[in-house]
Amino acid sequence: MDERTVFFLSDQTGVTAETLGHSLIAQFSGRNFRQITLPFIDTEDKAKTAVQTINSAGEASALRPIVFSTLVQENFRSILKEANGLHLDIFDVFLEPLAKELKEQPSFEPGRAHGVSDIDAYMRRIEATNFALANDDGGISRDYDMADVILVGVSRTGKTPTCLYLALQYGVYAANYPLTDEDFESGKLPDFLVQQKDKLYGLSIAPDRLRQIRKERRPLGKYSSAQQVRFELRECKKLFRRYGIPHVDTTEFSIEEIASRILDSTGVERRVRP
Amino acid sequence: MDERTVFFLSDQTGVTAETLGHSLIAQFSGRNFRQITLPFIDTEDKAKTAVQTINSAGEASALRPIVFSTLVQENFRSILKEANGLHLDIFDVFLEPLAKELKEQPSFEPGRAHGVSDIDAYMRRIEATNFALANDDGGISRDYDMADVILVGVSRTGKTPTCLYLALQYGVYAANYPLTDEDFESGKLPDFLVQQKDKLYGLSIAPDRLRQIRKERRPLGKYSSAQQVRFELRECKKLFRRYGIPHVDTTEFSIEEIASRILDSTGVERRVRP
Repeated sequence: MDERTVFFLSDQTGVTAETLGHSLIAQFSGRNFRQITLPFIDTEDKAKTAVQTINSAGEASALRPIVFSTLVQENFRSILKEANGLHLDIFDVFLEPLAKELKEQPSFEPGRAHGVSDIDAYMRRIEATNFALANDDGGISRDYDMADVILVGVSRTGKTPTCLYLALQYGVYAANYPLTDEDFESGKLPDFLVQQKDKLYGLSIAPDRLRQIRKERRPLGKYSSAQQVRFELRECKKLFRRYGIPHVDTTEFSIEEIASRILDSTGVERRVRP
Repeated sequence: MDERTVFFLSDQTGVTAETLGHSLIAQFSGRNFRQITLPFIDTEDKAKTAVQTINSAGEASALRPIVFSTLVQENFRSILKEANGLHLDIFDVFLEPLAKELKEQPSFEPGRAHGVSDIDAYMRRIEATNFALANDDGGISRDYDMADVILVGVSRTGKTPTCLYLALQYGVYAANYPLTDEDFESGKLPDFLVQQKDKLYGLSIAPDRLRQIRKERRPLGKYSSAQQVRFELRECKKLFRRYGIPHVDTTEFSIEEIASRILDSTGVERRVRP
């Protein structure tokens, strides 16, 4: 089958067009899409070059391209529309009803949705990222008083990427602590965690999946053995029960899903919205 | 002025609804929006509860809420539409033209756009994150052969969060190396960087902004002094020139913008699309 090319066009980063487009094409699962992002289309020349790129892709295939775009400025938008493709543009569709509802004209300035316009928000994300790094893996700082949430779980359940995602995306202060044999032998959490019990959130995972992930890191040895993995997960669940720690099974979940479930279930406030 | 409440509804994480909504409301800058995300609306009960939440917000204000939603299933969507508000739903608007173009019915399964459906993609993001952590700040591993890009710049120009964002969002292997007085004194880059010259990408920043950021970390001392900051940035630019390193000024840019500009300018391929 001919491959369909999908373009994501933007006068800024292209993040919105990509996110929107992925949600939609995910509904058509049997297909291969060739995906191309063309960001920062903020001059007439760049708009014209984009038209050529789209048309060339269309000519090279029996199928015309699909174009997701989020350009604010009408003049660039109308140039791009000359390209041969199916155009899906959120500003085309949603800006007018929104302006009517708000009784205000849009600024038509290239979107600062992912910009640094709000310095405070930018700094909060950076500081949250530094916090996550300093408090990763039970690590260096243990500034648990400052944490919004502290993720606990055995090695390789997704604690680190989830903390970093919470920091980068939402400015949330997320620490994490890996549960190890030492904790399982005592059957207790360390005191400094018990003191923060209300901030704890557990990550669990299916044994087979955990083995698969651990084997990528260390194919041999105890770390990825069936016995060790089952032992750790069983003991980990005991600790979650003992201390009444809410938790989520990450087996089927992406980083975004784990993060969203944590925010949804704990009620931790997003400090920033990207 | 009455505050307007904006809801982001989803049967999954809400990331798409948030991203879409932020791009649109960023066009109306003079306003305060109270933002509430209601993710994982995947049962009739949750849909009905969401309707109540939206209606309560509307009753508490003279202004009806604005509702961005990305629910796939028609039955939940029609329940939610009973809520009093301005509804903007991407599936309502874009799914039909897309299905017609692709000559295929959508799956109508709750969106896996941010799901773990593709295990390989998930693993690539995790591995890229581990790579960024191991190769942060000139650090531990120096697996520069494996890097897609190596960011260089003085302390606090945004190297670390940009590398982590590139990893989490796109599975790109991004290392970073901080340029310090030692490099400036020799007027040279270390040999291990010169060997990777084609992968280097520079981050620069305006002196005032850098001082402001450094003062947040260490208010006193040489690190955030005007003289030191100007010296480092001047010497850094000399190195960029000497080695012909492409670079971007991060002063006005968010993490997303820096990352997009790097990908756009270097042509580094996104290994994953979220």
